[in-house]
Amino acid sequence: MEIEYSNIKVIGFDADDTLWVNETYFRDAELEFAKLLAPYETANTIDQELFKRQIENLPLYGYGIKGFILSMVEIALELSNNTLSNTTVEAILNVGKDMLNKPVELLEGVKDVLSELSKGYKLIVVTKGDLLDQERKLEKSGLMDYFHHIEVVSDKKEANYSKLLNHLEVKPSEFLMIGNSLKSDILPLVNIKAQAIHVPFHTTWIHEQVATNAQDHKKYRTLSNLLEVLPLLKTPLKSKV
Amino acid sequence: MEIEYSNIKVIGFDADDTLWVNETYFRDAELEFAKLLAPYETANTIDQELFKRQIENLPLYGYGIKGFILSMVEIALELSNNTLSNTTVEAILNVGKDMLNKPVELLEGVKDVLSELSKGYKLIVVTKGDLLDQERKLEKSGLMDYFHHIEVVSDKKEANYSKLLNHLEVKPSEFLMIGNSLKSDILPLVNIKAQAIHVPFHTTWIHEQVATNAQDHKKYRTLSNLLEVLPLLKTPLKSKV
Repeated sequence: MEIEYSNIKVIGFDADDTLWVNETYFRDAELEFAKLLAPYETANTIDQELFKRQIENLPLYGYGIKGFILSMVEIALELSNNTLSNTTVEAILNVGKDMLNKPVELLEGVKDVLSELSKGYKLIVVTKGDLLDQERKLEKSGLMDYFHHIEVVSDKKEANYSKLLNHLEVKPSEFLMIGNSLKSDILPLVNIKAQAIHVPFHTTWIHEQVATNAQDHKKYRTLSNLLEVLPLLKTPLKSKV
Repeated sequence: MEIEYSNIKVIGFDADDTLWVNETYFRDAELEFAKLLAPYETANTIDQELFKRQIENLPLYGYGIKGFILSMVEIALELSNNTLSNTTVEAILNVGKDMLNKPVELLEGVKDVLSELSKGYKLIVVTKGDLLDQERKLEKSGLMDYFHHIEVVSDKKEANYSKLLNHLEVKPSEFLMIGNSLKSDILPLVNIKAQAIHVPFHTTWIHEQVATNAQDHKKYRTLSNLLEVLPLLKTPLKSKV
């Protein structure tokens, strides 16, 4: 089956690792955290324990850097058997602050793609994480003007997307989501019969990794670079607006 | 000047301390925090230092409980001169977790007012803070069905409201905001020529306190109880929908 995009009216973009680098900063922070806790545990155990705690804390803290910092402090106390120095606690807090202060590094082709698509489609950002952090990144990115609307959601499940489409007053078949996470940006859309294009990033958080089946694969496209969406969506502008 | 509400189409409600108790939980947490740090400083200094740090961290952490927890840990390290025990760090994290797990306690009249007004107006929630935390509270509150839309904003300044009204496609004169904070829920609305009704809560965070002038006072109403909005907004339903 050849996938067609002729009905699309609104295109949703994931932000982290679709428009700009994000996961890389988490990996760097985890390395720094493992160094700080090297006196107490192997890097592997530290990584595993931190991941488990993040997932445990997810219902309470949600996605984003602040919850990540809090989980790091908790795990550090435990792995050190409550012998953590105050300077290490401070260093962990600073790992988090550094993450929040990171510059926004756009991925290849982002500006060109947004500039071109914004001429014919309504573009929105659909992202999960800290509201303030995402707004700050969007502002730093210089991409604000391309987007009609920013939707920060607490999770990216089918229900969240259905609610969003309702709110936007578009049918599933008129909505295309573009993102790097199969679990968050692609499969929920396939399931509600909207369109989705997968543009993988080189690193994916374990929590975002999912198994897919051949059946699903036929329902969305995978591209190796965002720029490849342009020839797929090139249609007379008039029919779009 | 008698204020008229005959043009109103959309009513925005603040959430914390307008629909449910919130600030009280922060005051309780501050008391607990002061107890934990009692070996190092007076309660007064602890309060002041924590407040100053919250404001300093606001651009980075934003509003909400997670940023509050992180600021408590920072201040505890400093006031103890880096002699804080690991169990105290843990206790501070738990003060925060307890806050996130608090039940939602509705304020007087909320259900009646929403049930009545939802018949004739589009109701939305406009709140700042952690997205996940606010969504969780709204779900716990059982008020979800009364609202057309939940808008969690990173700040409540004039620009945030103007953007919201644009997005909702209503004119300022068609929008009424109801809330407990003069600074966040009332004055920005007065400034963009929308309507606002002030329903004070018994406790207000210092950061939300502002001086007002007599001129502004003429442009919004102050009620002592949310139920008092009903007679003001009672108009034939047909003209509203």
